[in-house]
Amino acid sequence: MVQGPPADSSGSRFTPLVVLELASDTNQDAIAWLLSRIRDQQQDGGAELLVEQLGPGVDAQEKENPNVFLVGATWQRLLSGAEDVGLFKEFNDGSMRGFTCANKHDFKDYQGDGDSFLSMAECQYIIKHLLDTLRAKQETHVPGHSEVKLYPGKSIVRRLQSKGILVQVFPLHEKEELKRLSFSWYGKVKLSLQPLDDIRHYYGEGQALYFCFLEYFTFALVPMALIGVPYYLFDWEDYDKYVIFAAFNLVWCTVILELWKRCSASLAYRWGTLSRKKAFEEPRPGFHGVLGFNPVTGREEPLYPHAKRLLRIYLVSLPFVLLCLYLSLYVMMIYFQMEGWALSVHDQEPSFWTGVLLFIPSIIYAVVIEVMNLIYRYAAEFLTEWENHRLESSYQNHLVLKVLVFNFFNCFASLFYIAFVMQDMVLLRQSLATLLITSQILNQFMEAFLPYWLQRRRNKKMMRKVQKRRTLEDKELPLAEQVRLEADMSTYLGTFDDYLELFLLFGYVSLFSCVYPLAAVLVVLNNITEVYSDAFKMCRVFKRPFSDPAANIGVWQLAFEAMSVIAVVTNCSLIGMSPQVKAYFPDSESQLILWTVAIEHVLLAFKFILSFLIPDVPKPIQISLARLEFESLEALKKKPYFEFPLRRKLMIIMPSSEGSLSLNLNYRK
Amino acid sequence: MVQGPPADSSGSRFTPLVVLELASDTNQDAIAWLLSRIRDQQQDGGAELLVEQLGPGVDAQEKENPNVFLVGATWQRLLSGAEDVGLFKEFNDGSMRGFTCANKHDFKDYQGDGDSFLSMAECQYIIKHLLDTLRAKQETHVPGHSEVKLYPGKSIVRRLQSKGILVQVFPLHEKEELKRLSFSWYGKVKLSLQPLDDIRHYYGEGQALYFCFLEYFTFALVPMALIGVPYYLFDWEDYDKYVIFAAFNLVWCTVILELWKRCSASLAYRWGTLSRKKAFEEPRPGFHGVLGFNPVTGREEPLYPHAKRLLRIYLVSLPFVLLCLYLSLYVMMIYFQMEGWALSVHDQEPSFWTGVLLFIPSIIYAVVIEVMNLIYRYAAEFLTEWENHRLESSYQNHLVLKVLVFNFFNCFASLFYIAFVMQDMVLLRQSLATLLITSQILNQFMEAFLPYWLQRRRNKKMMRKVQKRRTLEDKELPLAEQVRLEADMSTYLGTFDDYLELFLLFGYVSLFSCVYPLAAVLVVLNNITEVYSDAFKMCRVFKRPFSDPAANIGVWQLAFEAMSVIAVVTNCSLIGMSPQVKAYFPDSESQLILWTVAIEHVLLAFKFILSFLIPDVPKPIQISLARLEFESLEALKKKPYFEFPLRRKLMIIMPSSEGSLSLNLNYRK
Repeated sequence: MVQGPPADSSGSRFTPLVVLELASDTNQDAIAWLLSRIRDQQQDGGAELLVEQLGPGVDAQEKENPNVFLVGATWQRLLSGAEDVGLFKEFNDGSMRGFTCANKHDFKDYQGDGDSFLSMAECQYIIKHLLDTLRAKQETHVPGHSEVKLYPGKSIVRRLQSKGILVQVFPLHEKEELKRLSFSWYGKVKLSLQPLDDIRHYYGEGQALYFCFLEYFTFALVPMALIGVPYYLFDWEDYDKYVIFAAFNLVWCTVILELWKRCSASLAYRWGTLSRKKAFEEPRPGFHGVLGFNPVTGREEPLYPHAKRLLRIYLVSLPFVLLCLYLSLYVMMIYFQMEGWALSVHDQEPSFWTGVLLFIPSIIYAVVIEVMNLIYRYAAEFLTEWENHRLESSYQNHLVLKVLVFNFFNCFASLFYIAFVMQDMVLLRQSLATLLITSQILNQFMEAFLPYWLQRRRNKKMMRKVQKRRTLEDKELPLAEQVRLEADMSTYLGTFDDYLELFLLFGYVSLFSCVYPLAAVLVVLNNITEVYSDAFKMCRVFKRPFSDPAANIGVWQLAFEAMSVIAVVTNCSLIGMSPQVKAYFPDSESQLILWTVAIEHVLLAFKFILSFLIPDVPKPIQISLARLEFESLEALKKKPYFEFPLRRKLMIIMPSSEGSLSLNLNYRK
Repeated sequence: MVQGPPADSSGSRFTPLVVLELASDTNQDAIAWLLSRIRDQQQDGGAELLVEQLGPGVDAQEKENPNVFLVGATWQRLLSGAEDVGLFKEFNDGSMRGFTCANKHDFKDYQGDGDSFLSMAECQYIIKHLLDTLRAKQETHVPGHSEVKLYPGKSIVRRLQSKGILVQVFPLHEKEELKRLSFSWYGKVKLSLQPLDDIRHYYGEGQALYFCFLEYFTFALVPMALIGVPYYLFDWEDYDKYVIFAAFNLVWCTVILELWKRCSASLAYRWGTLSRKKAFEEPRPGFHGVLGFNPVTGREEPLYPHAKRLLRIYLVSLPFVLLCLYLSLYVMMIYFQMEGWALSVHDQEPSFWTGVLLFIPSIIYAVVIEVMNLIYRYAAEFLTEWENHRLESSYQNHLVLKVLVFNFFNCFASLFYIAFVMQDMVLLRQSLATLLITSQILNQFMEAFLPYWLQRRRNKKMMRKVQKRRTLEDKELPLAEQVRLEADMSTYLGTFDDYLELFLLFGYVSLFSCVYPLAAVLVVLNNITEVYSDAFKMCRVFKRPFSDPAANIGVWQLAFEAMSVIAVVTNCSLIGMSPQVKAYFPDSESQLILWTVAIEHVLLAFKFILSFLIPDVPKPIQISLARLEFESLEALKKKPYFEFPLRRKLMIIMPSSEGSLSLNLNYRK
């Protein structure tokens, strides 16, 4: 799969999959203890993995960290690990089933040598799981580091991570595979779709779902863009007649989200994550509390009272978020004052420069928004960390919620103010355009060019160093150099920012695109460059991330749906405010408002009914899942000795009359 | 458990649990075949149950049906059946677990003689399940009835039922138990709660949940009633000041439904239905189609194209429902004309009789509404039957939806019209009172007195008949008479009508009680009598129903939640229309409307957020469920030979090196 064995002393050939980097000042006892725990047999409580120290680089400077280790595993261990993590693979009959070693031969693609059965990303995920669930036995602290306390059942890797002894754990790239992937992904200018299965194969399901969503969203925008362009070109002066566009908008944002659920379910089924059960999550590395017993697992672990966390959330985090929202409103009002000032200057002595001046407040505001979002992001991370969530998933949900609300407010408050308080459609159009374009340019710069440029500089230095010392006989870097190069790469921080960006873009389009039909076109263009820049980032700028067996886009589905509800309300209000509709109610404003509200309620009700009527999972997949469940129920019925292994063992040794009878009955049939 | 063995010839003592009544003209071959299939061993495809013919009554008239059979089972068979249906029982450690014969001794209350382990209701449910899943083998038709076609895998009982050969299947009452239950339930006038656990023990979880919901709803109404009485007494002229009451209403209906979910989850956990997996449902008796293979189970069964059903739903049922709604509106308009006419008569020559005349239209309308609901109910049943749903549950859902929408419209359209189109609060108050009181009187009469009276007449005739022939040595009826008496009782048609009534009452209170504060008091009174009359009905009027292992109130939770959303909208509008609030916006009606709408949207958003924030299942139960899941995951990890029984058997005979190794490892630990 990868470049071959490390060229060092140990002799045994193994494929390095994951890199562990310990702090350079780690005690040698601790290292020896950790390595032996990783290598120990499973029945002795070890992880039964292969691990080797990375040899020194080409020029072993003193500043180079010697404590870098490569982790791999035997083929057998990977298979049993695949069963542990509940991996789903394609069965002989084409359905997806949980892999078990017992019936491994019934799985498609299983050849016994294992070259194509588990992808490297899956192997790395398995190893990460096995490392994470490597638990302390009777040790009270890490040998040589008496400050790093342990207790029976504590995940060793998590503790080392939280104490800073384990600097990083990351999976290795596969050079050949990556070259192939990046060529088919962004290497050529093409009109084809993204190679989603290859992306999933290399980066895992979570990444692939993000790119699939990005692609889906882009395609979903194409009709809007196609309608938007002629609207923009031919009705420039007249597109106060936006009623039809708003109505279209409203249907659009409901339908695409419903269809996405089906699309995502199909993909997740094909990739085997749809019905995969989540394993019980380890507590986060940063989670702390008083040692006690987990009521679910019965294991010893820190406990933190839920009530205390709720107090922190409602008495500190919530007020802080509200304060930030208030601040954001305050900044908005300053922006409107600047806007007014610029307008008055322009009105007094109109010139080219005062015309340019008109755009300055919007641009400044757009930049300030981005900066505020950035600062707030750090604050939100700090607060959510301080709330001390036990699970990574609940940490993520609370973080997403905080960041989402603020970003939404920050980006859209001014637009809502212009639209519904000032009721100035021309200004709305102008602000929307400025916000959209400025934030896109900023984002692309911050996301792609900056990290790429930094990475390039680092790479070049490294290459120069290597080339200085080596003859040019082969062009490939030796493994040691390659590993050190990857260790220096930036860490990919997950799809959070990417989804957030899409969420805001979705907001701009679904909320206000009826007054600025070009918005969809701009977003389509942005998304196309986004595919390329994200792909490039993934392949060249960042360390390979561990794959994440996601079945859907999670909390983001909810966020997008909330946005689409807001979009219905907004578009209905915009329709109610349009001169066309106002013309129907020349006398009574209240009548107009009442009708608008009534229609809005009907549409909202219809939206909810629609989301009930459209099944989230396509019929064939429903049938397939039901069949699996039915089979497992039937299998259960046939096995009376299922629940308790101990009891079953007794039966095997001395079958009771009843037991053997029913066994015989079943097998005779 | 029950009255002892039947006093007839067969000799073997068994406890009769379920009665099968075949048509009196059934062919003797068919009877013999059916009985032998019921008695056959399981490995021969039989149900392995005990079955005996009921002896003749005291005066065996020729019109008495001889084809009545009593079904029972051995204790062993009931236990294995309990495993088949996935019954949850209390484990030694206090948690609820799926019962398995293998570890029966680890369950609390298991004594081996089985007297208190399975309740009679559970035994009857198990027997029903075993009868329902008794499948045809190679028979092409029922012997002696060539018109009753069979195919391999078809449920025999369902086919006999749909062809009218099997007239009825019902479980027997337990006289002693029933006497005890009815005494503690409604026998004494008392202030204590209903004996829910006893109800569940006798009637099953579905019934018990209904009575629990009824009780919960009544208690939830008490604060409303307490506020309502002084409101009514002291502010009679002035209760246009209903703003506070409406606001209270609005919070109330949101909170009680959220809390009910938690309450229901606690009960369902205690009764072991919360995490019980539903077995795969048999097709309904009336379901028909072209014979084919079920894609899920692989069994031969009729298939009916989903597209055809959708066409029937959208092209026939939906237009029909809309037509009925239109008709209901039409009737409503006639009512308003009558109302206007009565008013004009009263205005011309006011007298006592014209004063009475004023109430006549409302009363007529209330009666017409009830009649229309009744007629529509039959039409809805016919249509839903014709839609040919495969599963009973989907049939029920479609029926509930149809009936619900029409009932809602029929009962509330006039109130909405008066409130929001005519804006006449006095008339609204009067209509609400009339509707509420009339429909309650009608309901109580139709539901309790009528069936009771009919039943009493029948009972008396039977008793007289029996007494004529017998000496008075013992007062108990012989089993044969008892069974025939029960067979003649009305069949209980499920909780549908009871829930529907509660739903409408909930509507009256949550939507409009702010203008008629006595509504809550009336509903509380109604509910108290309802508890008694329903309890009486269940115990004395109807055949015992089969228990229904429900985990919640199902589609009704959704219906009540939808009503509470409508209640928020309605109450906000009523608040916006109140003179008090209008006084704040003396100049601009649009401002008032905008504010009302804005607040309504905020409240709706808040409602949805609240329902996210309040967990549906209380924390201790969540932990308990998580622990069970964790344990089963851990157990799975320890058993590599789990998925395929065939493979496991091979392993038992010739353990592969790997397999036995891992077994040893696990047991050594």
